[in-house]
Amino acid sequence: MSYFQRHIFFCLNQRDNGENCCAQHGAQAAFDHCKASVKAAGLAGVGGVRVNKAGCLDRCAGGPVAVVYPDAVWYSFVDNSDIDEIVDSHLKNGQVVERLVLPDSVGR
Amino acid sequence: MSYFQRHIFFCLNQRDNGENCCAQHGAQAAFDHCKASVKAAGLAGVGGVRVNKAGCLDRCAGGPVAVVYPDAVWYSFVDNSDIDEIVDSHLKNGQVVERLVLPDSVGR
Repeated sequence: MSYFQRHIFFCLNQRDNGENCCAQHGAQAAFDHCKASVKAAGLAGVGGVRVNKAGCLDRCAGGPVAVVYPDAVWYSFVDNSDIDEIVDSHLKNGQVVERLVLPDSVGR
Repeated sequence: MSYFQRHIFFCLNQRDNGENCCAQHGAQAAFDHCKASVKAAGLAGVGGVRVNKAGCLDRCAGGPVAVVYPDAVWYSFVDNSDIDEIVDSHLKNGQVVERLVLPDSVGR
């Protein structure tokens, strides 16, 4: 069994050279909202859900992005309602939110 | 199939309040060594291995720590030779390095 049932990593990478990065697209706010929502729902902790900061996940073209492991499901999101859906559907109930899944063709 | 065959996250968390953290225990050097080794071995990239920075993974008592997904295998390491073994055995060949696995009892 996985130490965390589901472990979601948000790319919070900040580029200072003018290149595109998740930090320019609301990644920190989405992370904060996810973290607070998971905690409020009582999902946080060992055997439950961990919401984690990450550096560049190298799929910048789809940013902002997050990945849920061990499921290995990648998401691109726009606003807090997308995050709410990921929390309620996937992190809580294990149902992938298909409309937000990042296609494999989207890379750096 | 997973976008990255294996995705390893290193906790690089730095605490400035005097509490224990992975950054005090060589985490950045281990990350750098792993990243360079994976690249040199030709393992890096889509369908291969991604070596990633992460924030606090919340298993500070075992730090420095890293986790390999989607396998969900957690490691605690001491030096570059430990990292070499994780790269050669696990990231390249899928064989878990049992002697470095972090017991489930080790948490924050």
